[in-house]
Amino acid sequence: MDNDQWNAEDLGPCAANHVPLSPVAFLDRAARVSGSREAVVYGAQRQSWIEFAHTCRQFASALVRAEIRRGDVVAAMLFNTPPMVAAHFAVPMAGAVLNTVNTRLDADAVAYILAHCKARLLIVDAELFAVAGAALAQMASPPRLVVAADPQAGVGLPAQVEGFHDFLDSGDGEAPALPVLDEWSPISVNYTSGTTGRPKGVVYSHRGAYLASVSTVLSWGVPKGASYLWTLPLFHCNGWGMPWVLALQGGKNVCLRRVDAATIVRLIGEESVTHYCGAPIVHAMLRDEAERQGRVFSPTVAAMIGGAPPSPSLMRAMEGIGVQLTHCYGLTETYGPAAICEAQPAWAALGDAERAVMNARQGLPCALQADMAVMRIDGAESVPADGVTVGEIAFRGNITMMGYLDDPAATRKAFADGWFRSGDLAVLEPDGYVRIKDRSKDIIISGGENISSVEVENVLYSHPMVAAAAVVAKPDEQWGEVPVAVVELRDGSEIASAQLIAFCRTHLAHFKCPRQVLFQTLPKTATGKIQKNLVRDRLRAGAGTDAVPMKN
Amino acid sequence: MDNDQWNAEDLGPCAANHVPLSPVAFLDRAARVSGSREAVVYGAQRQSWIEFAHTCRQFASALVRAEIRRGDVVAAMLFNTPPMVAAHFAVPMAGAVLNTVNTRLDADAVAYILAHCKARLLIVDAELFAVAGAALAQMASPPRLVVAADPQAGVGLPAQVEGFHDFLDSGDGEAPALPVLDEWSPISVNYTSGTTGRPKGVVYSHRGAYLASVSTVLSWGVPKGASYLWTLPLFHCNGWGMPWVLALQGGKNVCLRRVDAATIVRLIGEESVTHYCGAPIVHAMLRDEAERQGRVFSPTVAAMIGGAPPSPSLMRAMEGIGVQLTHCYGLTETYGPAAICEAQPAWAALGDAERAVMNARQGLPCALQADMAVMRIDGAESVPADGVTVGEIAFRGNITMMGYLDDPAATRKAFADGWFRSGDLAVLEPDGYVRIKDRSKDIIISGGENISSVEVENVLYSHPMVAAAAVVAKPDEQWGEVPVAVVELRDGSEIASAQLIAFCRTHLAHFKCPRQVLFQTLPKTATGKIQKNLVRDRLRAGAGTDAVPMKN
Repeated sequence: MDNDQWNAEDLGPCAANHVPLSPVAFLDRAARVSGSREAVVYGAQRQSWIEFAHTCRQFASALVRAEIRRGDVVAAMLFNTPPMVAAHFAVPMAGAVLNTVNTRLDADAVAYILAHCKARLLIVDAELFAVAGAALAQMASPPRLVVAADPQAGVGLPAQVEGFHDFLDSGDGEAPALPVLDEWSPISVNYTSGTTGRPKGVVYSHRGAYLASVSTVLSWGVPKGASYLWTLPLFHCNGWGMPWVLALQGGKNVCLRRVDAATIVRLIGEESVTHYCGAPIVHAMLRDEAERQGRVFSPTVAAMIGGAPPSPSLMRAMEGIGVQLTHCYGLTETYGPAAICEAQPAWAALGDAERAVMNARQGLPCALQADMAVMRIDGAESVPADGVTVGEIAFRGNITMMGYLDDPAATRKAFADGWFRSGDLAVLEPDGYVRIKDRSKDIIISGGENISSVEVENVLYSHPMVAAAAVVAKPDEQWGEVPVAVVELRDGSEIASAQLIAFCRTHLAHFKCPRQVLFQTLPKTATGKIQKNLVRDRLRAGAGTDAVPMKN
Repeated sequence: MDNDQWNAEDLGPCAANHVPLSPVAFLDRAARVSGSREAVVYGAQRQSWIEFAHTCRQFASALVRAEIRRGDVVAAMLFNTPPMVAAHFAVPMAGAVLNTVNTRLDADAVAYILAHCKARLLIVDAELFAVAGAALAQMASPPRLVVAADPQAGVGLPAQVEGFHDFLDSGDGEAPALPVLDEWSPISVNYTSGTTGRPKGVVYSHRGAYLASVSTVLSWGVPKGASYLWTLPLFHCNGWGMPWVLALQGGKNVCLRRVDAATIVRLIGEESVTHYCGAPIVHAMLRDEAERQGRVFSPTVAAMIGGAPPSPSLMRAMEGIGVQLTHCYGLTETYGPAAICEAQPAWAALGDAERAVMNARQGLPCALQADMAVMRIDGAESVPADGVTVGEIAFRGNITMMGYLDDPAATRKAFADGWFRSGDLAVLEPDGYVRIKDRSKDIIISGGENISSVEVENVLYSHPMVAAAAVVAKPDEQWGEVPVAVVELRDGSEIASAQLIAFCRTHLAHFKCPRQVLFQTLPKTATGKIQKNLVRDRLRAGAGTDAVPMKN
């Protein structure tokens, strides 16, 4: 400041006017403002916010009594059940850092992650006890193991292990939480499912998690008392921050152990679900089941779709079953969604198809993220807003990770030029909206022409028989690369590959059309994201070259 | 942290992952997300968010070219017109600190404030030029004066002054704003209208203003594209942060030079107003006019009421004209509203009268304020939640001022024990809601019994002929103090003081009833708050002891 009248010590921060930002604070607020409202529901288990806050304090106290210290990592390898929701409060309330572990990983991967973040305690679902046990057996300093049974799902406790229920009972539900001392301190570490090399530990801060949660309320318009169905894995970017969002808004966590279409349709009705999130595959599964049952949800259910660009045809079909999709875009490094395709009032006048195309874009930075840009691949400036020039999506702002744990080189590379570079390729459209073209490694270069695999996939998805599709590059002597499609058909459908290629030719330039269509079940991550790297590997290995239609 | 794996330098804040919180950022966002939506409307003047952002950049650039430096104060003594809204962005965009000056102050008070905060530039409405000129004439280092004409209101520019229009033209609408370097730096300084002694300069930070704005969106539920009518003076706590809230949500500022009931009713219709704020007197004025015209607003208009506890009868009457009141409570020191009476679902089952009583309470801390308590008057702990024990309302959190400018003693006193003490007396009810009893100095102690002047006023307000009422203590030989009421009657009403006292006796213990009722126009602040200190002064001076009904 050029002017020094503000520098007086008496205008500095103190306990009365400066409190570190942390989403953990939303729990106390929920107990006070929405105390009698339902917080967590799982089958016959139902807790109000007052009861749930008590459980979280008890859980945190048990951690402290188990000698978990500030900055220690507590890992959770759990399905979307009540202990997993509670861990998002209890672990930071004990001053510790939460590491959620993908429930589909094998023992080697689990051991790598637990060792890398130096986990001191692991809470694992009893169904995953064998994997966890095998992981711990190969570690030099394994974490203490606590196993959560799930009697409701018929999953009992193995012999001679410490049960979560007993562990919880060792805590004091009246013990106050440890205060957050610094908003720029870690609240969680989430490992990316990186397609190459070892997974990286993405560190979230209390400040970032707080602002990301508030931003989601603003951008998605989550109302007070929302009823949220847990279709999105909580181990994925802390469930896009939704445990904290629901505390802030006094909403209800409707737990879900397995993503099962019939259960989802039932719970939407029984629990008056207003909101859920998921990758395209989750929405497609719901669409199929709702159509089969002839269900149209009323009132409309709001859903966020992310993880992969949704096809315009899926966007349209979801409207038909009473689901209003909002397309969001982000990465583990941006706390999940950091961009949202905000609908403009003028789009209401568009036709369904045109509106679906507008809504399928990645959009604009979410409310509290400072900025999102499409940067030149070889420079630090933005591409022009011409809808044509391809650049790399970059973010800047408080909804960006602290960095990668114990990997300063990767952190420096990710934060070059004062932006976080996403690795995703996109154009900036004249209206300022970002439209993704592809991940750098998913672009297909054929005869010197760039082919966006997403563009080809969108055409395939618009075919009524296609349930899922991935288009990848196959090495080719003549063209360098050619596009090949791997397709899952909807139940009961049959079509020849030549017919699907002909369909593509009516919608795309010929050079963009798949040279080959293979009918196979697609490999997917736990979050429903299609693993194109595995599709590519299969192709290189020469697998699945027969064009045999397969059922899902 | 006990665990040192997080302390690595590579997890520190950098340009990519840490941006200072400032509500000025909402302007760029509005131009990007809601660019074509209307931002500021004033009669025939209408600007979109893209146009308004251009004006603000030009205004900021003009300030920089006028040699305003970081930390300098720019004062604005303006009605709720477009330049006043723009100043809330342009002044901090120039790195300067905004001081809004109450338009009703006299030259001495204006001179005191401008000298105290060392204002370098004053923008004044041409109608207030005489007062401003007189103020500047008595200052040793007067600020540069810029005068804003308002041709639409028939207010022209005096001779030989610098006009705001020309000043604005000296700036460059393409010049980027100066970046905010530190979120803990001042964005504005607001002088309290302190009833005793000199006004104090309450300093707001960028961080606090940002969080207060977001908190208002969450707590009041301000939707995207809200249409907000400026009935609340912008010089009062920066209009409760609403200029920033509207930018965040792409809403519309409907300007209003004068609080005039007929104009308000007209604009609510013409501009599809969805929200407004004000002291009880503003709502009462609107009620009278709407009832006179037989208007019931549809869809319902949302209004925040603060500045004084609303009577249950006013809360009920507003429902009748289609206005949904939300009661908020706060002080200049808490950026305006920091508590809000959140309605509970169960209240819907109550009768109108009971619900109005629930809604008239001060309530709970707003969404992003850390805490609100009722502290023992002689201690640092909370009173029990018994609805009876009187304590002092205190706040703690980011929505609390940086401190008082150049007054370390007052700042230390306000922030004793890690809380900001409000000076307002209240009880904590069993449901955790705060109910105000009185300001410390407004409590009446009669024969050793405490009488809440608010309680007596609420009874008076429930009488259909009463427009406004103040109950104050009058010194009494026998009782120490006795309650005396000063009342304004509604247009065309007449009633004898004995009848009003009899009415009180049917609703209150006899010792609480006014011994005397005087019919007089009540002295009010610019924000419509009744100045009880002046009422008391009048009584002591023996003025107005005749019980003569007076028209408003």
